[in-house]
Amino acid sequence: MLNVSERVKSLKGSPIRRLTPFANAAKKRGVQVYHLNIGQPDIPTPASFMEGVRNAKVDVLSYSPAMGIAETIDAMVGYYAELDISLSHDEVIVTIGGSEAFCFALQATCNPGDEVLIPEPFYPNYVGHSTMNGNRVVPIPTRIEDGFHLPPMKEIERLITPRTRAILFSNPSNPTGVGYTYNEIEGLAKLALKHDLFIISDEPYRELMYEGEAISIMSFPEVAQNAILVDSISKRLSACGARIGCLATRNKDVLAAVNKLCQIRLSPPTFEQLGLVAFLKSKDHKRDIGVIVDKFHKRRDAMFDALQTIPGVVCRKPEGAFYIFVKFPQIDDSEAFAKFLLTDFQTDGETVMVAPGADFYATPGRGTNEVRVAYVLEEPKLVRAVEVLKAGLAAYVEEKAGVAAAR
Amino acid sequence: MLNVSERVKSLKGSPIRRLTPFANAAKKRGVQVYHLNIGQPDIPTPASFMEGVRNAKVDVLSYSPAMGIAETIDAMVGYYAELDISLSHDEVIVTIGGSEAFCFALQATCNPGDEVLIPEPFYPNYVGHSTMNGNRVVPIPTRIEDGFHLPPMKEIERLITPRTRAILFSNPSNPTGVGYTYNEIEGLAKLALKHDLFIISDEPYRELMYEGEAISIMSFPEVAQNAILVDSISKRLSACGARIGCLATRNKDVLAAVNKLCQIRLSPPTFEQLGLVAFLKSKDHKRDIGVIVDKFHKRRDAMFDALQTIPGVVCRKPEGAFYIFVKFPQIDDSEAFAKFLLTDFQTDGETVMVAPGADFYATPGRGTNEVRVAYVLEEPKLVRAVEVLKAGLAAYVEEKAGVAAAR
Repeated sequence: MLNVSERVKSLKGSPIRRLTPFANAAKKRGVQVYHLNIGQPDIPTPASFMEGVRNAKVDVLSYSPAMGIAETIDAMVGYYAELDISLSHDEVIVTIGGSEAFCFALQATCNPGDEVLIPEPFYPNYVGHSTMNGNRVVPIPTRIEDGFHLPPMKEIERLITPRTRAILFSNPSNPTGVGYTYNEIEGLAKLALKHDLFIISDEPYRELMYEGEAISIMSFPEVAQNAILVDSISKRLSACGARIGCLATRNKDVLAAVNKLCQIRLSPPTFEQLGLVAFLKSKDHKRDIGVIVDKFHKRRDAMFDALQTIPGVVCRKPEGAFYIFVKFPQIDDSEAFAKFLLTDFQTDGETVMVAPGADFYATPGRGTNEVRVAYVLEEPKLVRAVEVLKAGLAAYVEEKAGVAAAR
Repeated sequence: MLNVSERVKSLKGSPIRRLTPFANAAKKRGVQVYHLNIGQPDIPTPASFMEGVRNAKVDVLSYSPAMGIAETIDAMVGYYAELDISLSHDEVIVTIGGSEAFCFALQATCNPGDEVLIPEPFYPNYVGHSTMNGNRVVPIPTRIEDGFHLPPMKEIERLITPRTRAILFSNPSNPTGVGYTYNEIEGLAKLALKHDLFIISDEPYRELMYEGEAISIMSFPEVAQNAILVDSISKRLSACGARIGCLATRNKDVLAAVNKLCQIRLSPPTFEQLGLVAFLKSKDHKRDIGVIVDKFHKRRDAMFDALQTIPGVVCRKPEGAFYIFVKFPQIDDSEAFAKFLLTDFQTDGETVMVAPGADFYATPGRGTNEVRVAYVLEEPKLVRAVEVLKAGLAAYVEEKAGVAAAR
């Protein structure tokens, strides 16, 4: 039988893809859909990046070096130096987006059957890549009532088994927006040291921190051998389509391993690497990032305030990224709710698309009354979208009550 | 202990990388090195592609669709239609180079422990990706004396076990340049049908066929469910750094599986997808490819003729791609020979770098008196490079004889 592989069969596929046909059908009916479901910023990519691509002096578009163009690596090293993260040229490897960086981090460190600890709720693609690498994701449970901050380190330590190989997290976090404190990251670092675990920190939202500064794993020299930094320019440059990220570590064995993984996929795309060089060489690059951060800061506040007007809503103001996780105690199946909004609801010709919470959890039953919203629209639209969401929730609750009464 | 993973440890790493420091040292000594070791064409990328990148109308460089930009897929479907390969929009998935396409083909079809049949010598990265996916490469032995054409199908059939899952090959082939005949591909297709195997055909060198036309696996409707086409624009557009390829199949389960793999890595780079659209929309695109093919055709002939002047050389004129595999019966360690050329030899201030043959074989002991040369330089340089190679071989043989006499 020509069956596809078991691992790929077990990949869940994106909930957004399951819901997209319903969103498209709503649009066909003339309904306007506010997309709060995606992590795609709407902000223009900085001009210096675009000019870097367009003015790139390339006649033969040849393979770039497997670990990245030297100039691009230098530019990245300079970017980290500005953040007081000291990395040498050899410690930074250009990857095809942050996605490839954490895929490589897992492949380089984890054998099939190994376990990876990840704070839950988490970015679903962590599970996808772990599954393809034959690894089991062990969730570290966190709660919306705690703003998704970590449980006591003793509780996390109890999850460690002889097969545990790595701790993986994003900070600030997609999907919860939590920005971990110094003590939290230090606690994880100590656990990693004590139990000889790799610690993989995914930091693409670093600048998008509105309360304090993001704590990078690279600031803890005591875990230099355990620490792997995963990064991406997608969010801070609003350049998701560039597919440029990096992996950085001071562990020479991991560098050598990732080097081999780079060689078998040949190279990252050339033009976008040169775009990044132009961006980081431009004297305005900090200001350009600042403009993006400022927009998201205002949106975070506007959206959080708007959400407070929804009866029963549970959420804490997230410190970073551009997501808010929201609990509606009234619902018990967030995917059914998200679908209802697209198929059975509209107010003044408008509806809203949200990401069902359960898809960010591995633990069965968790997240069923939660949704993730992304603040990737302009403020007035965000405020209106939350009004629509509020009306949609009321309609959903009413319909559920009606169905229950009719039984 | 913070060890890297076993799989990544077992990756061999590229022989070229092992030899590169010696090439760099030679250059430092003032020696000119002719690079016959790489598969990187020296020909300018067509202007229409470059203009497509530079004129792309993009304000927000957002994620492109995971399976590729619709326009890019349409352009690819049109390209195949011109070759009388009829594929629908849903059957073509844009990938990050051909590398990702065959990585996805393996991940979608092969479980850990499954075996993959590959004609040997083969492209070393096939082994890299198979290893990372937990698969065992089972070589189908071919011989330089047969021009690396396939052995009788009965011999191939004997290699099939209950764990065999796929047959993978490139056609025309990197590293041997063999272009398989209709009967050969048909024979493999019949084996795949009889034993329920996937058949993965890597066809980036399709147009680079100088004797007859390349036979695509997509031309055999009887294996439509088994067949997976892997492709790349790298070679025919001299655009290796674009990282644009595709996977095409008529098997809906495989398409759904690859769709999930695409989602977890998000998207291929945007600018280069738009460059390809501009190239394929340009009325000159066939001519542009023709110019590239014509150059390689003349170089193939010039290089093959030059190689014939080397005493004892064994090679047959390859039908396609831009490589010639060459046997020198005088040598018994092609890596030592390649290293010797860089460290202990020069003639008139020049030397040559070749790829050691053994690295294209999985079978121990095979390829030790063979090297792969790529004809990616202009004709006069190629002819001169072969003269240098000839002198280098004579010097190597002489030195070996001297060492033997001194014992």
